Amino acid sequence: MKVLGVIVEYNPFHNGHLYHLQQAKKIVSPDYVIAIMSGNFCQRGEPAIINKFARAEIALKNGIDVVFELPTVYALQDAGGFAFGAITLLDKLTVVTDVVFGSESADKNFITTVAKTLLENPDKFDNLLKIELKKGLSFPNARKFALKKFLNENEDFLKMIENSNDILGIEYVKSILKLKSKINYHLIKRIGAKYNDTELESKYSSATAIRNAIVRNNPFETYVPQTSYKVLKREFSYGRGPVSLENMEQFILTFLRLKHRKDFESIYSFTEGLDQRFIKAIKTSKKLSDFLEKVKTKRFTYSRIRRAIFHALFDFKKEYIEFSNKLGTQYARILGFTKKGQKLLSKIKKASKIPIISNPSLHEKVLKKVLTDKDRKWEVNKKLFIWQFEKDIVASNIYTMFYPQKNERKYGLDFRKPIIEGENE
Amino acid sequence: MKVLGVIVEYNPFHNGHLYHLQQAKKIVSPDYVIAIMSGNFCQRGEPAIINKFARAEIALKNGIDVVFELPTVYALQDAGGFAFGAITLLDKLTVVTDVVFGSESADKNFITTVAKTLLENPDKFDNLLKIELKKGLSFPNARKFALKKFLNENEDFLKMIENSNDILGIEYVKSILKLKSKINYHLIKRIGAKYNDTELESKYSSATAIRNAIVRNNPFETYVPQTSYKVLKREFSYGRGPVSLENMEQFILTFLRLKHRKDFESIYSFTEGLDQRFIKAIKTSKKLSDFLEKVKTKRFTYSRIRRAIFHALFDFKKEYIEFSNKLGTQYARILGFTKKGQKLLSKIKKASKIPIISNPSLHEKVLKKVLTDKDRKWEVNKKLFIWQFEKDIVASNIYTMFYPQKNERKYGLDFRKPIIEGENE
Repeated sequence: MKVLGVIVEYNPFHNGHLYHLQQAKKIVSPDYVIAIMSGNFCQRGEPAIINKFARAEIALKNGIDVVFELPTVYALQDAGGFAFGAITLLDKLTVVTDVVFGSESADKNFITTVAKTLLENPDKFDNLLKIELKKGLSFPNARKFALKKFLNENEDFLKMIENSNDILGIEYVKSILKLKSKINYHLIKRIGAKYNDTELESKYSSATAIRNAIVRNNPFETYVPQTSYKVLKREFSYGRGPVSLENMEQFILTFLRLKHRKDFESIYSFTEGLDQRFIKAIKTSKKLSDFLEKVKTKRFTYSRIRRAIFHALFDFKKEYIEFSNKLGTQYARILGFTKKGQKLLSKIKKASKIPIISNPSLHEKVLKKVLTDKDRKWEVNKKLFIWQFEKDIVASNIYTMFYPQKNERKYGLDFRKPIIEGENE
Repeated sequence: MKVLGVIVEYNPFHNGHLYHLQQAKKIVSPDYVIAIMSGNFCQRGEPAIINKFARAEIALKNGIDVVFELPTVYALQDAGGFAFGAITLLDKLTVVTDVVFGSESADKNFITTVAKTLLENPDKFDNLLKIELKKGLSFPNARKFALKKFLNENEDFLKMIENSNDILGIEYVKSILKLKSKINYHLIKRIGAKYNDTELESKYSSATAIRNAIVRNNPFETYVPQTSYKVLKREFSYGRGPVSLENMEQFILTFLRLKHRKDFESIYSFTEGLDQRFIKAIKTSKKLSDFLEKVKTKRFTYSRIRRAIFHALFDFKKEYIEFSNKLGTQYARILGFTKKGQKLLSKIKKASKIPIISNPSLHEKVLKKVLTDKDRKWEVNKKLFIWQFEKDIVASNIYTMFYPQKNERKYGLDFRKPIIEGENE
């Protein structure tokens, strides 16, 4: 049995995603396809444009059999944390045989060499990295230059490693190697626009450009599959979106104005003076864009700053994130599945090393059962499980507050059963 | 020299306020008039409709010579705390000879008897109060019935003490007696609508009704003096108002959704199970009005619940509020003065027992000077001064975030010099 895993945000699901999925299936010829998807907040440090259940629904309509949620504590981390959360989740399910990820270079040897080198020589690389960081560079840039020195590569290398999908790819492979996972990995070349491009292009536009079009009320129908378009439109018509960082502006600034420097002490990602920059910038910012610009330096990228805001908001304690980045994902939360996916789920439930959460109201019961089960080798830490899970719940409760329609601002969005999709369309 | 003090909110300044001020002047014939005014948040547990500087400006245009701010830690307390903050401020200035307050009964003997009795027999009254509170009554109601038993009065008494101005009046007198203050107090009958009336009436409408009219974009010109109307209109035209609790709905609900029960433990006013009611109600509330209704009981009035929200928001620590309710106001922050008022201010600066804050940027310098001054008997506690002052600053920073116009959402509204009004108009 072949099970393909893909790691996605689908924010929103567009033509490029569909193409990628079809290519991945061609390469692997899987019996089943699983997606690990960000929940209501995404890696760029932004709320998703529609909620995770609606996004899971679109995924199921487009060829995914089961959608699991990447816990918020990983979805809101940099490439390293994001990848580690996703790969540990895939690996602990034990049934996934292959993973395919998009890549600008699509050069498996190169990506693997870099990943291996990084993994096997942590000290030597760390020293080079420190030198670059001292120059005030952002982490991705410092890593790039340190890697160059480390691998004695030329300038072409720099260009290759600049691409966000390659960076993620390296992190996926690092995690796979680190876990000594048996999962095979494949790279496929990304099609169309780059991840961060803001302009709409032909048929294949970036998710960023599509979100911008949506928020500005511009047409976007040609850039997404019809199934995606319909669900997006339905959600908007109910007033459950579009949700954007701009919607959260007043809340975020007010929240930050209440903070003292010491409040950031225990929060992940407030290192290297970021706390000071926050406190200073908030004093002269009337708009969120002002604030972000004022905190921005070569070292602190916009994504990192936005994520840091959410780390403070959701109280991402340093110790727990570090713990999470050692032990990995503690549960597999099902957002949705197809009838076909249901068969795979029964196999997963028998083999997984982490509990499968289908009905979140029962999560404590499930945890208790797992902790007392001597028949299987579980990889669960009680405290961390509860902490990670609680962050997903809180994230959803905050997310719905930013729906345009007040009557939809439901508390406890998470306490519902998964989406079940009749057939793939 | 006679100096009249009035304790006000002026939210907004209306015809009834002007009448009250004129009557007060008739009774006292003062050389100067001082107002102690709530800042950006008022005793009903709501943001003021326009900011404190604009409200001070209106007061100065209508016959007040100096406006001092009632610190936020008192403005957001029940009648007892509110009155204590205001009276200690007036008393510590040492120059105030008379205070006049509005009253439904205007029965000085009655108010004084009640105040004295309450003050002199705390234990006996407390026991009666506890019995009534155990019935689940709100504090004002429980106090009313306990007082009835205590004073052996009849049903008429109950009606008299139901009125919010009489309740405040009793608290003012209690504070005056407690401090053994030399300030003379006078009662004048309130004119027109009751404090809480929501409907607009003839010339004299309640501030609540006027705020409702403003928020609903209805005409309100006939209910306020022209000077008040002009300033209100000017503030609205700049987008610095109207500010209302409704503007804060999304923020407040999101803020509360982030809270755990233990977060309320250290906060003032979360006693008698209010924390539990908050946590329970937030889980089923999509709107602020839902939330308030769900928390509401006989015991917890709407005003108390709204104030409790702000206590949590501004981190009103139990110990510091209790400390504040023992030591009283720690500084006299000038919001504005007339040319005439300036003369009074120089007298006050020579005699006051608490520091006069004119330029808030210098507040630490002023405090330091006072703490090392051996020539005068100051009544200042360093820690409490800093704590109270910081709450005013934070309150203003949060307040401006709810201006309709983003460009006006200035941080540090407080760090400006007082309004100086040329002449009373």
